[in-house]
Amino acid sequence: MNELLLSEISTLWKKKSLPALRSRLCAENPIDIAEVLEALESEDAKSLPTLYRLLPKELAAEVFIAFDGDTEERLIGALSDKELSETLSELFYDDTADLIEEMPAGVVKRILKNSSAADRAEINKLLKFGDDSAGSIMTTELVRLQKEMTVGDALNHIRSVALHKETIYTCYVTDRTRHLNGVISALTLLTAPTDKTVGELMQPNVIAVQTSTDREEVARILEKYDFLALPVVDSENRLVGIVTVDDAMVVIHEETEEDFAKMAAITPSEDPYLKTPVLKLFKSRIPWLMLLMFTATFTGMIISSFESALAAKVVLTVFIPMLMGTGGNCGSQSSTTVIRALSLGEIKLSDTLRVLFKEFRVSLLCGVCLAVFEFVKVMTLDRALIGGGIDVLVALTVSLTLVATVFMAKLIGAALPLAASKLKLDPAVMASPFITTLVDTLSLCMYFVIASALLGL
Amino acid sequence: MNELLLSEISTLWKKKSLPALRSRLCAENPIDIAEVLEALESEDAKSLPTLYRLLPKELAAEVFIAFDGDTEERLIGALSDKELSETLSELFYDDTADLIEEMPAGVVKRILKNSSAADRAEINKLLKFGDDSAGSIMTTELVRLQKEMTVGDALNHIRSVALHKETIYTCYVTDRTRHLNGVISALTLLTAPTDKTVGELMQPNVIAVQTSTDREEVARILEKYDFLALPVVDSENRLVGIVTVDDAMVVIHEETEEDFAKMAAITPSEDPYLKTPVLKLFKSRIPWLMLLMFTATFTGMIISSFESALAAKVVLTVFIPMLMGTGGNCGSQSSTTVIRALSLGEIKLSDTLRVLFKEFRVSLLCGVCLAVFEFVKVMTLDRALIGGGIDVLVALTVSLTLVATVFMAKLIGAALPLAASKLKLDPAVMASPFITTLVDTLSLCMYFVIASALLGL
Repeated sequence: MNELLLSEISTLWKKKSLPALRSRLCAENPIDIAEVLEALESEDAKSLPTLYRLLPKELAAEVFIAFDGDTEERLIGALSDKELSETLSELFYDDTADLIEEMPAGVVKRILKNSSAADRAEINKLLKFGDDSAGSIMTTELVRLQKEMTVGDALNHIRSVALHKETIYTCYVTDRTRHLNGVISALTLLTAPTDKTVGELMQPNVIAVQTSTDREEVARILEKYDFLALPVVDSENRLVGIVTVDDAMVVIHEETEEDFAKMAAITPSEDPYLKTPVLKLFKSRIPWLMLLMFTATFTGMIISSFESALAAKVVLTVFIPMLMGTGGNCGSQSSTTVIRALSLGEIKLSDTLRVLFKEFRVSLLCGVCLAVFEFVKVMTLDRALIGGGIDVLVALTVSLTLVATVFMAKLIGAALPLAASKLKLDPAVMASPFITTLVDTLSLCMYFVIASALLGL
Repeated sequence: MNELLLSEISTLWKKKSLPALRSRLCAENPIDIAEVLEALESEDAKSLPTLYRLLPKELAAEVFIAFDGDTEERLIGALSDKELSETLSELFYDDTADLIEEMPAGVVKRILKNSSAADRAEINKLLKFGDDSAGSIMTTELVRLQKEMTVGDALNHIRSVALHKETIYTCYVTDRTRHLNGVISALTLLTAPTDKTVGELMQPNVIAVQTSTDREEVARILEKYDFLALPVVDSENRLVGIVTVDDAMVVIHEETEEDFAKMAAITPSEDPYLKTPVLKLFKSRIPWLMLLMFTATFTGMIISSFESALAAKVVLTVFIPMLMGTGGNCGSQSSTTVIRALSLGEIKLSDTLRVLFKEFRVSLLCGVCLAVFEFVKVMTLDRALIGGGIDVLVALTVSLTLVATVFMAKLIGAALPLAASKLKLDPAVMASPFITTLVDTLSLCMYFVIASALLGL
């Protein structure tokens, strides 16, 4: 937040000096203006529409899309039909489509009523694409060139259409039937002799995605190739839109935060933490806590079925938290690694066997190493601190259980996200909390079986 | 990986038809070429330098920086001094600086020997900045304009220097002493009348960062404002470099994966999973597993000190896994939320009290809700499944402990990352595994204290 700007604007607002406000705001970045207007609105609700009306049309549109959804809704409510229509005519189609998806039905009706018929047609095209597809994040406002154009023609064309295009820095070459033939950058056009043709200079092998391509895949391709924009084609290779790098960054941001949330057993939300009401935080957390607590019934049942063994050798209870903790940590190391590698496209389902073999070897190394360490610790430190009932057989029981637990935890941790992915589910739902519950149950069973065998309980 | 390209190149390589190889490669994207050359090298080591030599200078440099570090090292070893020097002269300074940071001393010596004195001076400037600073990820190859230039002058200047600049789409206006006065986009220049001056058209309020600004902050600013590049100034506001959006994406990617790794108790690494040797995976995981296992000694000690109580009422053991699991899950929900909010700049240290108050309220809601649910479950389901020894007082003990555990887990989960941040440590080290251990210990204490009081053990 630009605090300096906020205090200046706030002072000017109290003096009601609108011309000064206008010139001060116009010199600023739209993102900063949006933040300042939102902050001022929370002090004085009337300031939002008044200050918004001061902005020149183009800047106003940029500020508008930088507001958060609630502010947009309140502002639309305060604008006249004419004002709303002016703002809408300045928005890029993908931004209007996003707006429509967020607003309640009544507001959507007003938005559509105040858009031109041509705009409505373009927006409807975008709205029909699936939520997570390239189609849903692309814009149709791109620069099209033809092969036969000279560099001079191309630059003149760019000049004439530039203001209505989301980027002019990457231009696409299409034929009469809109098939994508090549790509050419503004850099190439600016530095080439003006009488060369676009066809001679363009890069003919274009990396493109389909409208149905997953948006995460789209973002990954943009990131991999360092592109500023990526073309989107329909099933017949006709160019229908582009995804720009800023939209890709938003996608990566959203998908990453979703993964973080799921891995911590939280329902993902796009709201920033401080703006999320307590009740909403509660609702995003409680179902998972209840579910996981409920599944802990199984571990309880296992313990109760070995109650007599535990009563005979109470010292066994001492190691339960350590075994469960280590199993959970091992499982979450593997599951997090595999979930991220899947998310980043570093591994595919066809790599399943390689992944499992790798985790198998790592688990043996970790298991043996931890078991030896624990055996020594039990026989020395634990015997000194805890004493009663600890002997070689107890230490052996704990160590053997550790090897088995680490082995299971790592294989389950690696296998479940892959299985989820195979079933077309999000691998991240198979994250540590669920794996921990499963590993807890299995490792307790193992513990009591080994204890029964070795200690003759 | 472009499999089609790989199989074509592989076939041509077996036929040794170098001219065909050259023209096939030249039509492709440097990122794809790099992947294919690396894949082919693993089949035939000689192919790498031979195919690399076929590439035109500029394309070769782009392919070179797309290789991973080991490939770069092997290739440098195979190139003559003259060839190395040609490649180096085509690299941007920030890429050469990154290369130098990755290579072993012997290779660094050869790189410096084969760079021109002027290049060496620029590279040395970049190398002196701290690892995580804006200085370390910026490039000095940017387009500088003067206020007095006309649009025509500016476009001519851009044309003449374009090939040696990392981006020409955002240009910076500086005065004779290199102070940053404004910013202007290629879009503005292309669409403005050619006789206007840069000074009239530029945006004078420039958002810039210092060379010492943290690179994560830099990436966040670029993402927030949707910039293609961000200017970096020294302590006297003199423009010294720019950070481009592709570098920002790399930073966000690296920092995010580091957070994921730390939260799963893994030492972060930049290697992709399948390329990481088993021993390296083992080494990145085992120290944390050992440390966490060691800290579990405390939970073991607490259990052992209540051994007589447990022996008298063995059914209490049944609920230990559920209590520990729920505590761990609650703690990791809060810690993940706070760690990510800190990472994204959504909350600052000054928000500590607001965060704690929010988590306090969420924890009460969650705690009471879970306790009621568990009380009913213990008195019905658990009593039916487990039976022996479960009564109202046991159910009450478990439920009260739950409220306390959830409360502690959420507050500790929120407070520790903030405390780490206050101590200038990475908040992510205070992630679920460490918090779980602490919460486990505290909740067990609580459990036995409440049990002793209610059940008179």
